[in-house]
Amino acid sequence: VPLADLTSWLDSYLKIADFKDWSNNGLQVEGNSAVTRIAASVDTSQRSIEDAVASGANLMLVHHGLFWNKPLMVTGPHRRRLQAALDAGLSIYAAHLPLDAHPEVGNNVMMASALSLQHTAPAFGIGQMGELPYELTLQDFAERVQKLTGEICLVHGGGGGTGVHKLGIVSGSGAGYIEEAARLGLDTLLTGEPEHKHFHDAFELGLNVVYAGHYETEVFGVRALAARIEEQFGLPWQFLHLPTGL
Amino acid sequence: VPLADLTSWLDSYLKIADFKDWSNNGLQVEGNSAVTRIAASVDTSQRSIEDAVASGANLMLVHHGLFWNKPLMVTGPHRRRLQAALDAGLSIYAAHLPLDAHPEVGNNVMMASALSLQHTAPAFGIGQMGELPYELTLQDFAERVQKLTGEICLVHGGGGGTGVHKLGIVSGSGAGYIEEAARLGLDTLLTGEPEHKHFHDAFELGLNVVYAGHYETEVFGVRALAARIEEQFGLPWQFLHLPTGL
Amino acid sequence: VPLADLTSWLDSYLKIADFKDWSNNGLQVEGNSAVTRIAASVDTSQRSIEDAVASGANLMLVHHGLFWNKPLMVTGPHRRRLQAALDAGLSIYAAHLPLDAHPEVGNNVMMASALSLQHTAPAFGIGQMGELPYELTLQDFAERVQKLTGEICLVHGGGGGTGVHKLGIVSGSGAGYIEEAARLGLDTLLTGEPEHKHFHDAFELGLNVVYAGHYETEVFGVRALAARIEEQFGLPWQFLHLPTGL
Amino acid sequence: VPLADLTSWLDSYLKIADFKDWSNNGLQVEGNSAVTRIAASVDTSQRSIEDAVASGANLMLVHHGLFWNKPLMVTGPHRRRLQAALDAGLSIYAAHLPLDAHPEVGNNVMMASALSLQHTAPAFGIGQMGELPYELTLQDFAERVQKLTGEICLVHGGGGGTGVHKLGIVSGSGAGYIEEAARLGLDTLLTGEPEHKHFHDAFELGLNVVYAGHYETEVFGVRALAARIEEQFGLPWQFLHLPTGL
Amino acid sequence: VPLADLTSWLDSYLKIADFKDWSNNGLQVEGNSAVTRIAASVDTSQRSIEDAVASGANLMLVHHGLFWNKPLMVTGPHRRRLQAALDAGLSIYAAHLPLDAHPEVGNNVMMASALSLQHTAPAFGIGQMGELPYELTLQDFAERVQKLTGEICLVHGGGGGTGVHKLGIVSGSGAGYIEEAARLGLDTLLTGEPEHKHFHDAFELGLNVVYAGHYETEVFGVRALAARIEEQFGLPWQFLHLPTGL
Amino acid sequence: VPLADLTSWLDSYLKIADFKDWSNNGLQVEGNSAVTRIAASVDTSQRSIEDAVASGANLMLVHHGLFWNKPLMVTGPHRRRLQAALDAGLSIYAAHLPLDAHPEVGNNVMMASALSLQHTAPAFGIGQMGELPYELTLQDFAERVQKLTGEICLVHGGGGGTGVHKLGIVSGSGAGYIEEAARLGLDTLLTGEPEHKHFHDAFELGLNVVYAGHYETEVFGVRALAARIEEQFGLPWQFLHLPTGL
Repeated sequence: VPLADLTSWLDSYLKIADFKDWSNNGLQVEGNSAVTRIAASVDTSQRSIEDAVASGANLMLVHHGLFWNKPLMVTGPHRRRLQAALDAGLSIYAAHLPLDAHPEVGNNVMMASALSLQHTAPAFGIGQMGELPYELTLQDFAERVQKLTGEICLVHGGGGGTGVHKLGIVSGSGAGYIEEAARLGLDTLLTGEPEHKHFHDAFELGLNVVYAGHYETEVFGVRALAARIEEQFGLPWQFLHLPTGL
Repeated sequence: VPLADLTSWLDSYLKIADFKDWSNNGLQVEGNSAVTRIAASVDTSQRSIEDAVASGANLMLVHHGLFWNKPLMVTGPHRRRLQAALDAGLSIYAAHLPLDAHPEVGNNVMMASALSLQHTAPAFGIGQMGELPYELTLQDFAERVQKLTGEICLVHGGGGGTGVHKLGIVSGSGAGYIEEAARLGLDTLLTGEPEHKHFHDAFELGLNVVYAGHYETEVFGVRALAARIEEQFGLPWQFLHLPTGL
Repeated sequence: VPLADLTSWLDSYLKIADFKDWSNNGLQVEGNSAVTRIAASVDTSQRSIEDAVASGANLMLVHHGLFWNKPLMVTGPHRRRLQAALDAGLSIYAAHLPLDAHPEVGNNVMMASALSLQHTAPAFGIGQMGELPYELTLQDFAERVQKLTGEICLVHGGGGGTGVHKLGIVSGSGAGYIEEAARLGLDTLLTGEPEHKHFHDAFELGLNVVYAGHYETEVFGVRALAARIEEQFGLPWQFLHLPTGL
Repeated sequence: VPLADLTSWLDSYLKIADFKDWSNNGLQVEGNSAVTRIAASVDTSQRSIEDAVASGANLMLVHHGLFWNKPLMVTGPHRRRLQAALDAGLSIYAAHLPLDAHPEVGNNVMMASALSLQHTAPAFGIGQMGELPYELTLQDFAERVQKLTGEICLVHGGGGGTGVHKLGIVSGSGAGYIEEAARLGLDTLLTGEPEHKHFHDAFELGLNVVYAGHYETEVFGVRALAARIEEQFGLPWQFLHLPTGL
Repeated sequence: VPLADLTSWLDSYLKIADFKDWSNNGLQVEGNSAVTRIAASVDTSQRSIEDAVASGANLMLVHHGLFWNKPLMVTGPHRRRLQAALDAGLSIYAAHLPLDAHPEVGNNVMMASALSLQHTAPAFGIGQMGELPYELTLQDFAERVQKLTGEICLVHGGGGGTGVHKLGIVSGSGAGYIEEAARLGLDTLLTGEPEHKHFHDAFELGLNVVYAGHYETEVFGVRALAARIEEQFGLPWQFLHLPTGL
Repeated sequence: VPLADLTSWLDSYLKIADFKDWSNNGLQVEGNSAVTRIAASVDTSQRSIEDAVASGANLMLVHHGLFWNKPLMVTGPHRRRLQAALDAGLSIYAAHLPLDAHPEVGNNVMMASALSLQHTAPAFGIGQMGELPYELTLQDFAERVQKLTGEICLVHGGGGGTGVHKLGIVSGSGAGYIEEAARLGLDTLLTGEPEHKHFHDAFELGLNVVYAGHYETEVFGVRALAARIEEQFGLPWQFLHLPTGL
């Protein structure tokens, strides 16, 4: 598949132009003009680039790209990353907020669907809210999340024994949305990465918060997007599982 | 001791006016006009306010105060915090960056001293850098830090087996300084709270990073400041240990 | 009436969310959860809070609230105001620009109606413009305004003998709108508070300006809003008349 | 005297380049190249320009000039002002904050001197603070100010009977400095123009405030500056007294 | 024709209020109240003002006016320009971006029409894009442009021999749009003034660029606008040809 | 020579850290760790990179680098430039304003020296001012400049016959400094690139302006810097002459 066709389809499917995002969404590195195999990774790192190349991919889809709205000197780690990609003809396509918020393959709709959420609606800018089919205890809910991600969750039982029924979901770093979750009348927020400065919010606002990991809550989007590309263009793909433990 | 005398001494000792800090340093809540007992706490929370009152304190020193540069409606948790303090006549004095950076009682100089750092110098805006008297393995260094804080550290051995000799210290949330630590020629950074987005920096720049906890690295300043006040004014004090695990 | 029901109705009726106002519109202080009596005041001051409490009110509606887009240390007058309100369980609900501009109970439509203005239309962002049924001399018009407010007006006859027919109205501090009033083809502007720096505008642009007082032009909104609440919820209310002479 | 020599001396004497002022200090309109007579006026208005021309002046010194940091279309009143000045060859030299703050001819040092203030020091950015030789009652102090300006003052006795001893002075619109005056330990603030929004500050902070008029507190600087020019260059001058009552 | 009628018609016809332009579009100088003759000029200069006056005009239409979003002291050249206009009662009406972008008399639609462009559409904010009826060699195209403007073009054959078919047009200083022209799939950009810093763009993006002169590409709008006014109001007019060679 | 030694010396010699420049001064691309040969070029272009590689250089000094304060996607021309440099191990070191303003090898001091200017002083932020040993006619001066650069100058004789004695020099795009040159009492400004919007300044302010070309006035710095490096480190170098005609 010509790279230009693929990026043109991605730009449109992910509505890249609609997002004012500090992460420079879109084709960040232009490699070979023909794409025959895809790798999907949460992060862009020296390791993920090398693994992508080793897998035979010539396009890597990532959630976290190389640029965050300021120019980087092509020195040190950034030079090594670029050189590894350019030497191998590996293109890198980044989709940050567009892939959190996407209605079909976004991190948050994917989790909402995996947890069988009902009456879902967008919330928190990029997230989702909805209801579990029936209320679970916080412990049981955390176990379901752990089955989904394969990792232990950090559980802050601010709800004081309240079960989980009305749920908010924000992939990545969403502790700052605890207050909005309370205002929306939710009982529980599922997000990725905790922050000390928002620790007390859950307990003083009476909300349960389940932290499932920044990395763990952001694997869904890139995988679903790669699968969607396979469906559209017939390209084989592979997910590079490189967890950070954060 | 008259509250006005104490706050005037604190404003001067901590050089409050020199910091353009988004945390509104200084006397945030004015309680009884006479101070007879002090409580010291890392955070301002409903729990820390109630514990301070229960301890008989009429002034609470905190690192993280109530305000972060925008007005809060006096509703919900903020109302409950304010009401608890005002009802009990408890003053709250906050010192954020001034207490990270302070040359005598700052979180970072206190840690540098506890770790016997030599040739210390200010770095990272609010932190410190220096050398251990002799090189330690990363494992041994982490154990020394754990003895100091009483909590397990998260260790990212980006140095690839390099020992710890030239050390940077940044209390709280300092993962964003990994790059500056490498530029300064350090081998190891000790900080508080990790962030997913800086995970790869340590490994690609070849730096060891020891994350000792946001809370755990910020207990030093308020304790030392309370002790300094006791020395100056003869007031009894107590540290409120309310860890967040973050 | 539950406080939450009342504030929810007010937020919607006043379209609080539509205004980007530096005065933090909405519930600024949360008092008792049940509201049985209302006080209405132009300003929030120690005196108005104490009078509201003395009147038996547990909710005070104000045009000028406690916060103007920056955090205030809870010390001095601000602490005394908050403590007086919190001790008495008095809620404070502020509506600044939303109550100037409101189409039913706004300060400006209320004045336009009291002056029998015809063909009215919004103008000056928050104000009104329209025509008197028949032209009045400037002197006669000023007397009508004085009857309405009960206070002497300051009259700047920039129109040089022109009568009053096409009128602009801006409650509060509206001298900066003289130029816009001239551009709109009006002959007279009625506003509240004069400013030296706009003195010459009236005379050089040939416009009459009647300054009826900042306070005096802003009593209409809070009174009408309280009456509207009485109509909706059956709550008794009282206006606290605390003029500033400005 | 050549206009260029005069403006060069003024720019230097008033330290025009040191002020980041929104009023475009300096020579705003360039008239005849030789200056033979000077007019001094607080404001630039059609009337003051015409009076200056009628007095035979070819340079008018003003406190409030034509420009306030944005371009004005040369239409309406602005065109008439410019045309009147250009037709008559009248130069206009404006000094706003530089003439409030000047240590010799500034509005505030002139008032401090006229009131026999002792131990004076700069304060409030452009103002002065100091002590009266002996304490006066607020009433007696207001009378002394009235003798100085020739106009009635508005007196807000926030001090609750406290006399006047430690005094702050801010020419023009200084009600916003009441809080700083209290923090500086002053008992009384003398300024020009009141503002409704600062009305309660005086009463809740316990400070006396004497409002002597925006215009009335700003006549001193331009008069003193004109006298200083006469001393330096021997040029005759005249003050144009055009009060606004504000 | 009354000046007010003419400016009101111009403001509406050119949609002046829709442009946030740093050039202060609209009536910049108000001269005689009756307009009997019009001059049209690309620039406002001492020379163009004097020529306009000499031609008997009392209104000059310009593309580049006197003000660029900051106030100018009325000294030196600016004073001489204003005085010349005011002395002669000459009004100056400026239309910068509104006259580049206008769909009937804009510089860019006028050029597109003169070059017989087909399938035209707005592009580059203020410009046009479209197709020549049949492809020309770059040399032939440059000659057609030269016939249109009467001046030699600077031709950068970045297309490497590609002919001219899909054309972008940006009057004035449009070298910064070369990248956008390439993204739009055009083969050639016609603009006015070259810039060193965009020199390499044409050659590395493979685009032909024809620089026809800043002045030469901006004569069309003011001439067409003057003709349109003649049609509407019957006023005689004259174009002042004062090229800069740039 | 180790690349790190060279860049460290350059950063210090050019005082890179003192410039807040939008061009990302310093080592922009990190190539081979050992430098054996240097190329010097005004611009970074595909052509200059390829010529540098062809010359055997492993470090290219440039005045205009790759980045201008915003991140560039590594696609199209930018990818080709980076790939060409990285493939060849070519480092790119950029010095924009630091090399205009440098007191030994800056573009402006080099030109001042070549023109035998006396009593030189810094001016225009990055430029120089001084006096010719004796006055030249504008024509003779332009010829001296043409001998220096080897290219025809564009001469704007705004001085109306005035000769050249007091000269200002600003390399590159300096037409915006005509006004400052007049204020400094100079008779002539020598700069690089003309701009239509400053055309009239020279003529209305009575200043001669000689435009010697953006490229032509910026060859001095990189050549002198390369020679200085040769002196310091003994490295051979070559200037890549790639004029733009602008």
